[in-house]
Amino acid sequence: MDRVALWNGLAAQFCIDGIRASTAAGSGHPTSSMSSAHLLAVLYADHLRFDVAEPRALANDRLVLSKGHASPLIFSVLKAIGAIDDAQLMSFRKMGSPIQGHPVPLPDMPYIDVATGSLGQGLPIGLGMALAMRLDENPARVWVLMGDSEMAEGSVWEAMANASHHGVANLVGICDMNRLGQRGPTMLQWDGAAYVSRASAFGWNAIAIDGHDVVAIDEAYRQAEAADRPTLIVARTRKGNGVSFLQDAEGWHGRPLSAAEAESAIVELGGERSLTFTPPAPAPWTPPGAAAAEIALPAFEDGVATRKAFGETLAALAARPDVVVLDGEVSNSTYTEDFQKVAPERFVELYIAEQCMAGVAVGLQALGKVVYAATFGAFLTRAYDFVRMAAVSRASLRLCGSHAGVSIGEDGPSQMALEDLAMMRAVHGSTVLYPCDAGQAAKLVAAMADQAGISYIRTTREKTPVIYDAKEGFPVGGSKVVRGGAPDDRAAVVAAGITLHEAIKAADELAKAGTKIRVIDAYTVKPIDRGALAAAAKATGGRIVVVEDHWAEGGIGDAVLAALAEEGVSGLRYRHLAVREMPGSGKPAELLDAAGISARHIIDAVRNLLP
Amino acid sequence: MDRVALWNGLAAQFCIDGIRASTAAGSGHPTSSMSSAHLLAVLYADHLRFDVAEPRALANDRLVLSKGHASPLIFSVLKAIGAIDDAQLMSFRKMGSPIQGHPVPLPDMPYIDVATGSLGQGLPIGLGMALAMRLDENPARVWVLMGDSEMAEGSVWEAMANASHHGVANLVGICDMNRLGQRGPTMLQWDGAAYVSRASAFGWNAIAIDGHDVVAIDEAYRQAEAADRPTLIVARTRKGNGVSFLQDAEGWHGRPLSAAEAESAIVELGGERSLTFTPPAPAPWTPPGAAAAEIALPAFEDGVATRKAFGETLAALAARPDVVVLDGEVSNSTYTEDFQKVAPERFVELYIAEQCMAGVAVGLQALGKVVYAATFGAFLTRAYDFVRMAAVSRASLRLCGSHAGVSIGEDGPSQMALEDLAMMRAVHGSTVLYPCDAGQAAKLVAAMADQAGISYIRTTREKTPVIYDAKEGFPVGGSKVVRGGAPDDRAAVVAAGITLHEAIKAADELAKAGTKIRVIDAYTVKPIDRGALAAAAKATGGRIVVVEDHWAEGGIGDAVLAALAEEGVSGLRYRHLAVREMPGSGKPAELLDAAGISARHIIDAVRNLLP
Repeated sequence: MDRVALWNGLAAQFCIDGIRASTAAGSGHPTSSMSSAHLLAVLYADHLRFDVAEPRALANDRLVLSKGHASPLIFSVLKAIGAIDDAQLMSFRKMGSPIQGHPVPLPDMPYIDVATGSLGQGLPIGLGMALAMRLDENPARVWVLMGDSEMAEGSVWEAMANASHHGVANLVGICDMNRLGQRGPTMLQWDGAAYVSRASAFGWNAIAIDGHDVVAIDEAYRQAEAADRPTLIVARTRKGNGVSFLQDAEGWHGRPLSAAEAESAIVELGGERSLTFTPPAPAPWTPPGAAAAEIALPAFEDGVATRKAFGETLAALAARPDVVVLDGEVSNSTYTEDFQKVAPERFVELYIAEQCMAGVAVGLQALGKVVYAATFGAFLTRAYDFVRMAAVSRASLRLCGSHAGVSIGEDGPSQMALEDLAMMRAVHGSTVLYPCDAGQAAKLVAAMADQAGISYIRTTREKTPVIYDAKEGFPVGGSKVVRGGAPDDRAAVVAAGITLHEAIKAADELAKAGTKIRVIDAYTVKPIDRGALAAAAKATGGRIVVVEDHWAEGGIGDAVLAALAEEGVSGLRYRHLAVREMPGSGKPAELLDAAGISARHIIDAVRNLLP
Repeated sequence: MDRVALWNGLAAQFCIDGIRASTAAGSGHPTSSMSSAHLLAVLYADHLRFDVAEPRALANDRLVLSKGHASPLIFSVLKAIGAIDDAQLMSFRKMGSPIQGHPVPLPDMPYIDVATGSLGQGLPIGLGMALAMRLDENPARVWVLMGDSEMAEGSVWEAMANASHHGVANLVGICDMNRLGQRGPTMLQWDGAAYVSRASAFGWNAIAIDGHDVVAIDEAYRQAEAADRPTLIVARTRKGNGVSFLQDAEGWHGRPLSAAEAESAIVELGGERSLTFTPPAPAPWTPPGAAAAEIALPAFEDGVATRKAFGETLAALAARPDVVVLDGEVSNSTYTEDFQKVAPERFVELYIAEQCMAGVAVGLQALGKVVYAATFGAFLTRAYDFVRMAAVSRASLRLCGSHAGVSIGEDGPSQMALEDLAMMRAVHGSTVLYPCDAGQAAKLVAAMADQAGISYIRTTREKTPVIYDAKEGFPVGGSKVVRGGAPDDRAAVVAAGITLHEAIKAADELAKAGTKIRVIDAYTVKPIDRGALAAAAKATGGRIVVVEDHWAEGGIGDAVLAALAEEGVSGLRYRHLAVREMPGSGKPAELLDAAGISARHIIDAVRNLLP
């Protein structure tokens, strides 16, 4: 069979199998799959270099299905390359099947690298993969199949700008311009020239083609492979292509065909077939053999901010060749610049584009990198959808949010992270860390390197005293009792980060007046140390004060109450000091006091609880 | 004084006052203000039509200071137009002053419309204002002063695409291309041609000028005023312009001058002066006089999804001429299409650009519109930074997130909102609503119209039974007891939305076996009904089960525990049923059951609590 016949035959088979799977499921997006069928037929048959037996091998090219709703298509491709069989394909969208409604990487679905389904994420993720390949001198390439609707997402243009700026040539975007979004025509419909002009203005090689002309597709891929810049292929297609009653028809998004419609469509497409093929082999490549040097964590004197300790620890971790650090143009505030100074080739400046930063992190870690990404905690809210999806991807990310809470001072509320703990606690499987001194920060930052899933560390702008001995260990999931600890403590104050220092001041003041309290450093906010909290409640007759530089909702207070409830603690006498009014500008100490989370408020709360 | 001399004199004064204010404060961004001084001098003196005595008047042109860190500049302008005096200017960044580190609208700061300081938000907000003006046939204009660093934010390009698509001609972006971001050179530095070509490709009129040449600035503003499209003025400037040791120098971002440096800089700038001026008057305009027709809420039969009730209620609310509805290209899923059908001129399709949607909402409400914006709850995570900042703006927004939880079924986790309650609870002053049936949804949607602050309603994909009488009222902040309620209830189950129906099934099953329980519909998740929860705890000996289609963190469970703790309830015996493992695809009932939040799990949890 010649290539043209093979490509067209495969495309028809992908359409048919996508219809079969979605009709059997009773849901799904067959028509959005059909518009891309020729694009993936040519790609997998002749361009994407992929070892089916070793789907996770770094030497493989990568396909990111940014238009994740075209899942019937990708699973039909996987069947044709022998990765799954027809029975698996037909389990599409069924309970327990790894052939899910949108692609998800799973132990039993190793052919998918990252979860998609939230549009606009594929290109930033693909950029991260392309950067990982370049770091490893790996000649592989990343192909990202995008829908035209998702070109409205700003995250796509963040990645466009960053990809050309960083000179990435091994990244190819394929825009399936099928003109129809979920609810009707897209903004630009079939105006391929507009996409080409936008991509060109963003520094990309841009090519417009007929997305159902396999020869044109093949030629465009060849051009992309030869380009010295990232390439966007704008492919004019028809949704539901190849079936008279589906093609370019509105009202067919996310809608399976009935059994009768499917039968008729399959006839129009030439009937079921069982083509199989093997994609091209990966290019020869020897992984870099750099070994990790020993890591010596920095030690700190008094008065070093935890954000500075974060940066210096990253610099120490640079001895691990798999560590890559990203920032969103605030590296002199987060102190990722300390890493950049020692390992500039593994530092990526993503400029003020937090979504792109998070996407790049997901892409890098999919290819084995240990990625830290940092910005102000307030601005990580910008990337929340990417973090949420990273959890669906089973990604391991290490995020740092600096400038936590009102204690940042004069810059005011726009720069204060006051919802970051709530946001990060509500990420599946996340770890949330909040150090109070530089040495503790260093050990937690180092521990994050080996932490699976999404881990988040909250750092403080202000300098803080060192309260721990340099030899102290801080296991993830633990806490520390820093004042009191005897069975006769009258009350316990739970704090972390900046408020821990206020709690210590309060405890010392109360001790002078003869009132012994326990102070718990909840440096792990999630999973919080339930045992230590339950023990404190038991010792103190349930008298617990939580004090945090965060809104009252979703932070340490909520975490403590949930832990105590889960431990079956009853008889709680509880006070919660948190930020409850919108702060303004002011000195850090003034703002802590105005928010009711300074030492004197803690003293009042404790006294208020005592009989 | 001729105009050129006035403009240059004003610019020098703005630089000097910005230096004075930030040096007095000991923090702030004087050099980022200086690069824009000529731009605002010409704008306020001769183009921005503004009644200083009526700063909130709709007829005024609007300035959005997207580069909010240039606050010394805007407050210096406000002094020169007589809006504030020098003593107020010199209170910059001090505790309690409305002259904050980044601009915030406040009762005593009516010259600012929206809070800025998170970059990339000004243009989407400005687009919303421009749309409000167009709806009101108001000849005013919106000017957005942006930094060049923030052009890396995707949200800017979302607004660029939407502004040209929607044919908005009364929006002018001014990009202060000073080449230097916080930590060094921007991505494009002084490549004005690149910005012009990007803006042109996005359908804008684009003009490159020298941003310190007042005649060129004046001419560019005239061109923008005459344009039939939105205009981007790319102004090449120098950070710290006019002072030898500051201009185009690195290391001066966010750094005030010392007293000695300030003195020397002020000499270089020609010394202190006290120019005052009056901006041009607003164009004559008569506000539209449309009166609200009576609103008749729809009634519902069984089996209508709350998302559908949301849409039908919006259609009824269209009788209020101030109601505007936005969607992110999923209007046939959220059912905002029901509003679009009856009031297409007040429906704005923002395509898949959730950040832009939220920004447009903020802009519209700043000019008096009652705005509802909807997308999948999962995708509202995309706009979290905008929602956070909207709270700083004291904005009133009505957000709807559809497709809550695992109960959406086959589409899988990428489409399931499982962190939206956590995210929205942690917004300052927010209201979080979660209806269980269509009639309740309708009444809550209508109540949102008069709700101040950020209100959020969570809707469900699946059809649900109607459990309430059409006459039932649902005050915000309330709850309902839908089963039990006697003083001898054995346990209470707190639920909302889809899980309320599971709780009812469980209660009815338990009742058959002789166990009477109370079921509470917590349709207001924030502020949750503390009294009803405390009463339930008291009646049941503290036996409370919370069941929710949300991650275990930050949702109804955390809200209930915080409320009970605040009410001083002790002796709690608590079970929390929530989503704890990453779901996949499946039927809604299968997924509810697999997550442990279906009726049988509620029955088990209750039985487990009983003695």
